[in-house]
Amino acid sequence: MQATTAKRTAKRGSAKTRALVRGEPVVRGILAATLEELASAGYRALRIEDVATRAGVNKTTVYRRWPTKEDLVRAALLSVTDEKIIPPNTGSLRGDLVALGRAIIEIQASPVGQSLFHVCLSEGPDSELMTIARSLRAVQEAGLRAIIEAAVARGELAPSADPMLPCELLAAYLRHKMLADRTIVDEAQLVHVVDVILLGVLRPDRRKRA
Amino acid sequence: MQATTAKRTAKRGSAKTRALVRGEPVVRGILAATLEELASAGYRALRIEDVATRAGVNKTTVYRRWPTKEDLVRAALLSVTDEKIIPPNTGSLRGDLVALGRAIIEIQASPVGQSLFHVCLSEGPDSELMTIARSLRAVQEAGLRAIIEAAVARGELAPSADPMLPCELLAAYLRHKMLADRTIVDEAQLVHVVDVILLGVLRPDRRKRA
Repeated sequence: MQATTAKRTAKRGSAKTRALVRGEPVVRGILAATLEELASAGYRALRIEDVATRAGVNKTTVYRRWPTKEDLVRAALLSVTDEKIIPPNTGSLRGDLVALGRAIIEIQASPVGQSLFHVCLSEGPDSELMTIARSLRAVQEAGLRAIIEAAVARGELAPSADPMLPCELLAAYLRHKMLADRTIVDEAQLVHVVDVILLGVLRPDRRKRA
Repeated sequence: MQATTAKRTAKRGSAKTRALVRGEPVVRGILAATLEELASAGYRALRIEDVATRAGVNKTTVYRRWPTKEDLVRAALLSVTDEKIIPPNTGSLRGDLVALGRAIIEIQASPVGQSLFHVCLSEGPDSELMTIARSLRAVQEAGLRAIIEAAVARGELAPSADPMLPCELLAAYLRHKMLADRTIVDEAQLVHVVDVILLGVLRPDRRKRA
């Protein structure tokens, strides 16, 4: 898609479209404006015109790159996790999971993260927005899979039928605390939960696999 | 409250109020009707009159026992978990957590459970309904605490600063699968997740507490 846009741009060749391809700041500005619009108006009521106004660009600048509202919102949501949830590669599964947890907590605690959370919930589990959010999980899972594969390569984990479970348990717990207790988990609790996922809760002398 | 109602009933002494106190079926009918109304209309739009009609009782029969909509919905939600999530006491933490997971899954998979889940989500995290649901957690936690205390008494768990974590991780995971993947977890996966919570994911030769 990058390539297609570049080709189209070369053909048209206006200063504005060249800026859009070259100019990451413009793209980032539009995606940030999309997140802000999404957080304040929700998905259903979101209008590309309002995003353009907020970003200070012409609406054709937005349409050219993201022809539909769905494309635009998908890109905006991906930009949140892409920036934060980079495979951390700390050298241990414990370090990587703590880093992953910190990234999730940072998103949860940010104003845009908080608003998006509310919007996602209030639009309901079968809304278009939640469908988009779910479709992004495949992309995000690639990053998480790198954490697990590195741990298997280091010999920390045996290859497993359900390799993503450590990441899923951690993400599920952090989301549960926010949803059920309206709590952002602190660093000490994050490390504690990661250690439970790594080591389990049973006393060492009671560990016979049943 | 049971005692107060009984005293009031004795004073008034009508056949109808005696039936309400004696007659668990009437109470259960009203609570079931409340869940059905809640599932179809949501909390905001729920009217005690409609609950009474659905249950086939006079609305004063409902008001007498639950003076407000909040009281009624709280009792109805409690009835769901009270019936299902009884401390299972299977003799092992593994058995108890699997039984707890089965109970949660049974609620998730039931038509009323599914609808309640949608209603809770669509009314949003700061809605009155979610506030009621959160206030019930203290009551539900008493049952879960019994699971943990029995495990500590059997020597399976060391006393912990965060004793509820095993139950919370399990509940969070089951909710996450439903919310993120629209999946009801099957028995094999339930047992797998319980074993990860009990034993951790690290290979035995890599288990040094950091």
